[in-house]
Amino acid sequence: MAHQLLILSRHASEYHRLVDEARLPDLQIRASSDVEHLADVSACDLAFGEPSLLAPALPALTALRWLQATWAGVEPLLDPKLRRDYVLTNARGVFGGLMSEYVFAYLLAHERLLLRKYASQQAGQWDKTAPGSLRGKLIGIVGVGSIGAALAKTAKHFGMRVHGYTRASEACTDVDRYFHGDQRLGFARDLDYLVTVAPNTSSTRQLVDAAFLAALPPRAVFVNPGRGSIVDEAALAAALREKRLGGAVLDVFQTEPLPADHEFWRAPNVLITSHTAALSHPVDIAPVFIENYQRLIRGESLNYVVDFARGY
Amino acid sequence: MAHQLLILSRHASEYHRLVDEARLPDLQIRASSDVEHLADVSACDLAFGEPSLLAPALPALTALRWLQATWAGVEPLLDPKLRRDYVLTNARGVFGGLMSEYVFAYLLAHERLLLRKYASQQAGQWDKTAPGSLRGKLIGIVGVGSIGAALAKTAKHFGMRVHGYTRASEACTDVDRYFHGDQRLGFARDLDYLVTVAPNTSSTRQLVDAAFLAALPPRAVFVNPGRGSIVDEAALAAALREKRLGGAVLDVFQTEPLPADHEFWRAPNVLITSHTAALSHPVDIAPVFIENYQRLIRGESLNYVVDFARGY
Repeated sequence: MAHQLLILSRHASEYHRLVDEARLPDLQIRASSDVEHLADVSACDLAFGEPSLLAPALPALTALRWLQATWAGVEPLLDPKLRRDYVLTNARGVFGGLMSEYVFAYLLAHERLLLRKYASQQAGQWDKTAPGSLRGKLIGIVGVGSIGAALAKTAKHFGMRVHGYTRASEACTDVDRYFHGDQRLGFARDLDYLVTVAPNTSSTRQLVDAAFLAALPPRAVFVNPGRGSIVDEAALAAALREKRLGGAVLDVFQTEPLPADHEFWRAPNVLITSHTAALSHPVDIAPVFIENYQRLIRGESLNYVVDFARGY
Repeated sequence: MAHQLLILSRHASEYHRLVDEARLPDLQIRASSDVEHLADVSACDLAFGEPSLLAPALPALTALRWLQATWAGVEPLLDPKLRRDYVLTNARGVFGGLMSEYVFAYLLAHERLLLRKYASQQAGQWDKTAPGSLRGKLIGIVGVGSIGAALAKTAKHFGMRVHGYTRASEACTDVDRYFHGDQRLGFARDLDYLVTVAPNTSSTRQLVDAAFLAALPPRAVFVNPGRGSIVDEAALAAALREKRLGGAVLDVFQTEPLPADHEFWRAPNVLITSHTAALSHPVDIAPVFIENYQRLIRGESLNYVVDFARGY
């Protein structure tokens, strides 16, 4: 019997085209950017799309057996009021490259004094200030899954030292030293750069709090392309205001878009990138669904299954 | 008999300390930032320092046998009016990492729309404009010596395609395709990024002229951390003014400091970095002298010998 797939995404037509092109067997597809535009979806046993769009559609998807998210983070589907009687898979292994470009764009810009040199140019000044270098500097990565591993690899390419803070895993060999659990203040000490790419879970929420920020050296730059929930924003704003931190590059926030009156907009040494660090590109994400569908019909276990209790 | 070394450098005391620390045998050292401060230097058979300072001192260095330059480029010593009856070695193998950080800081900043995002932030705007990515983009490197090879390696790390333009060598395996001699317009075609790191020689002067610039796609960004002489500055200014080029990141110029009335200061899409791309750090350069001195006293051939006729 054919599978019935619901594609629910801002990029529904592009995903429809990409999945069509894969000529998957026994698959009927319905695609929309708005579930309201579709009649009865109760026959759909498969779903593929953005967690934010699929969460409200869950009650109507009574036959749902497997849902492939187009995002790495699946918070909207983890709401305890929602069903968990299906296999949830997320998008992994596709954001490492983009995240690496994002993080190292800002690390290199910081070392090379890019904004300062630009300001000198605007003033017509030949500015011979010597830039710094990433070589020998220490980066601390919170969360060393596939994205953290990609960051560690790029850090090593530029000759950096790499520390990792994880729940338990020590799988990535580009990390020179691992820290876990209550070692977080020891992890913070001596970092030149702190980058947080951990999922939003009970053990990562507010991990970067006042005590953590106080343990960082004043030269440290904090880069957060992960989850806004990992940081105590008031404590971060205070650390920046009081120059106890070298700077912050923030892509994600507790409230998005960042409210117009938020002090981050004008805080010293803050750069705001408006949740664009690693946008989902259908051409990168569609293959994750396609491979998983092939595994499904061959009766194999799916890639990137989310543990509802753990949250990732 | 002991060797007599003249260190002539802006960083004379630091070089003196670093060479002293190496406890090299049979070596007497005189160090200054100004040869006028030294009495008779005619007994010095060795010299180590900046080519710009050593060139005017050459006539007085009557016993000179070997000169180690602290720079990669040695143009001041290539003046045909100067002696060439000594072994000249330059600094190589130490700038690749720094150049890579410089070039990729600006390539990543371009893809990530760093300055545009910063302007949006100044205006209090949540800017969701999607950044680009280096992955799959084509970089063309003019000059694939040790610096060009370091750039090619970093380009591959970020998933770029790499073309190289060289006199003859095809040694670097990170280059996907080589171009030589009269293939320069074919080389220019389709590039997303052009980076010039070739030495200043008769075959590289004005290589990037009006015809070369016209062959580049209008999206291409030109990065020049090499030598100002490689580009026809008037043709480059015209290409930028007429939006026939995506942008330029310029570290070196025909006249430095860049004159206050030069149109590059305010040309659209130009970033000026004031000859700071890869500054010589004594801690990196001193080991080049130290290793070569050890080779000298062992009677071995020196590293990085410059061919006066070829110019590098």
